[in-house]
Amino acid sequence: MSVVGDSVREVDETSRTRRIATDYVDSLEQRAWPRLTALLADDVVYEMPQSRERIRGRSAFVQFNAEYPGDWHLQVRRVVADGRLAALWLDVRVAAERQDACVWLEVSEQGLINWVTDYWPEPYDPPPGREHLVERW
Amino acid sequence: MSVVGDSVREVDETSRTRRIATDYVDSLEQRAWPRLTALLADDVVYEMPQSRERIRGRSAFVQFNAEYPGDWHLQVRRVVADGRLAALWLDVRVAAERQDACVWLEVSEQGLINWVTDYWPEPYDPPPGREHLVERW
Repeated sequence: MSVVGDSVREVDETSRTRRIATDYVDSLEQRAWPRLTALLADDVVYEMPQSRERIRGRSAFVQFNAEYPGDWHLQVRRVVADGRLAALWLDVRVAAERQDACVWLEVSEQGLINWVTDYWPEPYDPPPGREHLVERW
Repeated sequence: MSVVGDSVREVDETSRTRRIATDYVDSLEQRAWPRLTALLADDVVYEMPQSRERIRGRSAFVQFNAEYPGDWHLQVRRVVADGRLAALWLDVRVAAERQDACVWLEVSEQGLINWVTDYWPEPYDPPPGREHLVERW
C-alpha cells in the first residue's frame, strides 16, 4: 500500500504545483498584485540568467512586475509540473510584438513559490551548413 | 479505486517520460546514435522557434545532431516530466563557452519522442530602470 500512497501523494503535490504555476501567470496577466503576493514566499528569489540579474524577496519582486513597462500580455502555452517543480512555456505579447518565454519555478513545502527563473530567448538567424536538413517557417 | 488507479497510471507515465527525457540527453552527450534513434518516433518533429527552423523525421534529426559542429557537452540541470510532456533545463558547454538551453519534448503513447522544441537563450544587457530592485552576478 505504501507505493500507492506515495503515488497519490506525488500526484497531489504535482497538481498543487501545476495550479500554483498557472495562478502565477494569471495573477501577472490580471495585474492582481495582492493575489500574486499571496502565491510567493517572503524570501522568493527571481533570476534572469541571460542578464545575470537577481531579485530577492516578495515585495521587490511584486514591485518589479508592477513597474514592468509596456502593455504586456502572457498566455500559457504549456505547463509541466513534477512534484514541487514546474516549467512554463509562455506566449508573451507586447503590443504587436510576440516572444516566447521559458519559466522555471519551485514551490516550497508550504505551497509558496520560492524560486523563479525566466528565460527570454530572442530570434536569431540560423547558422549556415544545415540547410539540407531544415525547413524554415 | 478508479482515482487511485488513475493516479498510479499517471505516475507511471510520468516516470517513463522522465526516463526517456534523460536518456535523450544522455544519448546525445554520448554520441550514441543508434540509442538516440531508438528513442525517436519515425515522424518526430524538431523545432527551433528562435530561428524558425524545423526538421522532420527521425533520420534527418539524428543526422542533424551527428553533424552538429563543435565539441559540445550537455548536462541536465533540471528535468520536469508531467504525463507525456517534459521540460529539460540544460547546461551546454562548447569548449570554454557555457550556455543554458530549454528543451520541451513530448512522448507518444507508444513511448517514442515525437516532438522536440529547443530554446537557446543568449546573454543580453539588462534594460535601464530596474537597478533599484536588482542585483547582478
